[in-house]
Amino acid sequence: MTGGKLPGEFELIAQYLAPLAKAMPGAAGLTDDAAVLDATSDRGLVVTADTLVAGVHFVAEAPSELIAEKLLRVNLSDLAAMAASPWAYTLSLALPESTDRQWMASFVQGLASVQSEWGLALVGGDTVRTPGPATLTVSMFGRAGPAGNLTRAGAAAGDLVYVSGTIGDAGLGLAIVKGEIDPGEGADRDYLVERHYKPSPRIDLARAIVAHASAGTDVSDGLIADLGHLCAMAPTPLGARVDAAAVPYSPAARRVSGEPMSAALLTGGDDYELLFTVAPGRAVQVEKICTDRDYPITRIGTMEEVPGVRVFGSAGEIVDLGSGGYRHF
Amino acid sequence: MTGGKLPGEFELIAQYLAPLAKAMPGAAGLTDDAAVLDATSDRGLVVTADTLVAGVHFVAEAPSELIAEKLLRVNLSDLAAMAASPWAYTLSLALPESTDRQWMASFVQGLASVQSEWGLALVGGDTVRTPGPATLTVSMFGRAGPAGNLTRAGAAAGDLVYVSGTIGDAGLGLAIVKGEIDPGEGADRDYLVERHYKPSPRIDLARAIVAHASAGTDVSDGLIADLGHLCAMAPTPLGARVDAAAVPYSPAARRVSGEPMSAALLTGGDDYELLFTVAPGRAVQVEKICTDRDYPITRIGTMEEVPGVRVFGSAGEIVDLGSGGYRHF
Repeated sequence: MTGGKLPGEFELIAQYLAPLAKAMPGAAGLTDDAAVLDATSDRGLVVTADTLVAGVHFVAEAPSELIAEKLLRVNLSDLAAMAASPWAYTLSLALPESTDRQWMASFVQGLASVQSEWGLALVGGDTVRTPGPATLTVSMFGRAGPAGNLTRAGAAAGDLVYVSGTIGDAGLGLAIVKGEIDPGEGADRDYLVERHYKPSPRIDLARAIVAHASAGTDVSDGLIADLGHLCAMAPTPLGARVDAAAVPYSPAARRVSGEPMSAALLTGGDDYELLFTVAPGRAVQVEKICTDRDYPITRIGTMEEVPGVRVFGSAGEIVDLGSGGYRHF
Repeated sequence: MTGGKLPGEFELIAQYLAPLAKAMPGAAGLTDDAAVLDATSDRGLVVTADTLVAGVHFVAEAPSELIAEKLLRVNLSDLAAMAASPWAYTLSLALPESTDRQWMASFVQGLASVQSEWGLALVGGDTVRTPGPATLTVSMFGRAGPAGNLTRAGAAAGDLVYVSGTIGDAGLGLAIVKGEIDPGEGADRDYLVERHYKPSPRIDLARAIVAHASAGTDVSDGLIADLGHLCAMAPTPLGARVDAAAVPYSPAARRVSGEPMSAALLTGGDDYELLFTVAPGRAVQVEKICTDRDYPITRIGTMEEVPGVRVFGSAGEIVDLGSGGYRHF
């Protein structure tokens, strides 16, 4: 890797981006006006898009390899939220004049690493200059599985609410990166910062449970807000109750946050865990699938007819979520 | 239309963007994590993406309806360059805090107008805040026609070079908008500014000639540079000669630029006209198709074995294109 000014668009594409398109012949090495993909399939094409802005969604000085990881992983999480398989993506980069070759080479390394982990290929995009902060947009394409898609619409009163992994790590990681909290050097800091940059899209879990779940989404706006989306999109609008003591936190989050766990972790967002509902009669099967495959899921609550998302503390009191609570829209 | 602060993301989607997704049931009114499109087809899915930055690709004060028109039309031009039919798009908006409801309502009006003209539907995207200039990304999807796609690779020495419409209008329009030139008020100014904001994607033309053309692209980087791309992507690398006197200019461009026409118009870019090559034996057929359907095309030169793109003046001299000439890459 060397520093120095970025080359013009064509050399930039040839040197840095075309290698990422090799696996998809229809992308023609990014040399044509558009890619032609073989969409022959009796299953749906799943399409999503996400934009990250330097200084808003990540600190501008972040290593570009980690920015690339985050950019693809947040889009992968949207595919997971639909129980779709990753396939291809377009990449649109608006980059400041100061962007150098070292930044670009490391950014491409991050993309390549996620591509090889998830079987993705780059199929097109655009690269332009901006007088503002780096603004990175991915539009990602996936294929529906044989069991169909996981949608937000379908929960019923009485369904159990599950979430994967742990909640709050990414929010704490961002606060550390921004210097708002300082847990000192060490494993907790490293773990939480990694959870901010490298969320784990729950593709495999989603595909394993999609036939049994009534509804699902990923936790991007915050556990409570995203549960609110499942309530709002149910065939008849529902509410949900969450048992605060059941919400899964990592040991690092517990140490850094300090007990009792702050309610802010429930509303912080960017966890990119899978949040889904299951009819009681299917819960045993779902839990068996996840135990057998070592997928970490936790039952945290129940869908109910009472509107709103309410969080109950261990003494039965309702936890005040401040402005991060469920918003009707 | 009213001014005032933009609402939060969910209201923004529900109020402004969801109506643009109505025609595509799989977009679920933009309420889920991703759209599920019916890609069942024995033809290819054509994918492209383009980004426009305020202050770079359009003046920041431009009417947002025209920005929307330009954003979709430059992507449509990429579909035209592949001879694909428009289908759907994702829209990712990074907007400054100052963006108000009036800007958004007028922007949506522009999107809706292009959608209804071209049979497009919005299927997803993202809306985020930026401390920088408005940065707008569209990823657009098209379907290949029964005659296949128009690609950049396929020209042979001796093929005739054609371009649609007129060249240089959009560059003059941008110069007017930026205040770099002032043709006074009137029809010429209006025409050239409209050509800057509302390029005409040559979808119908491309689909009509794709079975007969050997190669094609759209003029986005500039007539000479884009012809250079067709030379570079030919099975064996070629050059091209262009007859300067044959290049089509609009009456408005002739009046505003003044004779002789500046060579800068040949390299200015953003014309979004269709540039394509045809084997001599097929020229009569292509010209008949275009005459019958009233598609404006002009033969401007010939592909040849001599490398480089050379422009010849009326006295047989080679026109100096300065730094805008053909670049190897």
